[in-house]
Amino acid sequence: MTDAINLADKLATFSDTFSPRTVAQFNDCDVMVVKVQGPFVWHKHDDTDDFFLVLQGHLTIELRDRKVELGPGELFVVPKGEEHRPVAKEEVHLLLIEPSGTPNTGDVATAAPRRVI
Amino acid sequence: MTDAINLADKLATFSDTFSPRTVAQFNDCDVMVVKVQGPFVWHKHDDTDDFFLVLQGHLTIELRDRKVELGPGELFVVPKGEEHRPVAKEEVHLLLIEPSGTPNTGDVATAAPRRVI
Repeated sequence: MTDAINLADKLATFSDTFSPRTVAQFNDCDVMVVKVQGPFVWHKHDDTDDFFLVLQGHLTIELRDRKVELGPGELFVVPKGEEHRPVAKEEVHLLLIEPSGTPNTGDVATAAPRRVI
Repeated sequence: MTDAINLADKLATFSDTFSPRTVAQFNDCDVMVVKVQGPFVWHKHDDTDDFFLVLQGHLTIELRDRKVELGPGELFVVPKGEEHRPVAKEEVHLLLIEPSGTPNTGDVATAAPRRVI
């Protein structure tokens, strides 16, 4: 069991991008923080929605038919099965929630390893 | 499908306390914002963890064996089945995540109705 989890403190413990860290678990899901910068890969998750909350910076989530722009305190849930590509012009800090074991790239062959901090 | 969800904008649309508003869905869960002030009731959820992220203010989550103090940008997940009581000395704004239909009091007889905004 853990007590209060300070997201900024957790984010201060690492500097690499596109490598989520699990900071808590909620039912079968990992609650993660991640730093992103630049474009990620186009991908989708056939079995789960994909939760994004911006903590710092500005993120564009490109979908095939439009772009969703997110600033601090704004969230978006990418629907299950929908192709998307997060793009960050500058470094962005995010809170992510996905079922534990979900590959961040949509493909276990290229996914970042699960890291718990 | 919804686009960017600004949590502060959603919170500005209501003033009542202990009455969560659903602002998004993530798989089988409601993503909610809520304002709380004062003590809530002691309760537990036998079937789900309980996700709290403080957006504004300071919240104490009393557990039977200790208290968890949360400020802005801090989260805590109350484990399934664990009795807890949120207490806010001043108004606090929270992001909550629970499976849709989870009674906020732990009891359908006293739960706040589900409201989507």
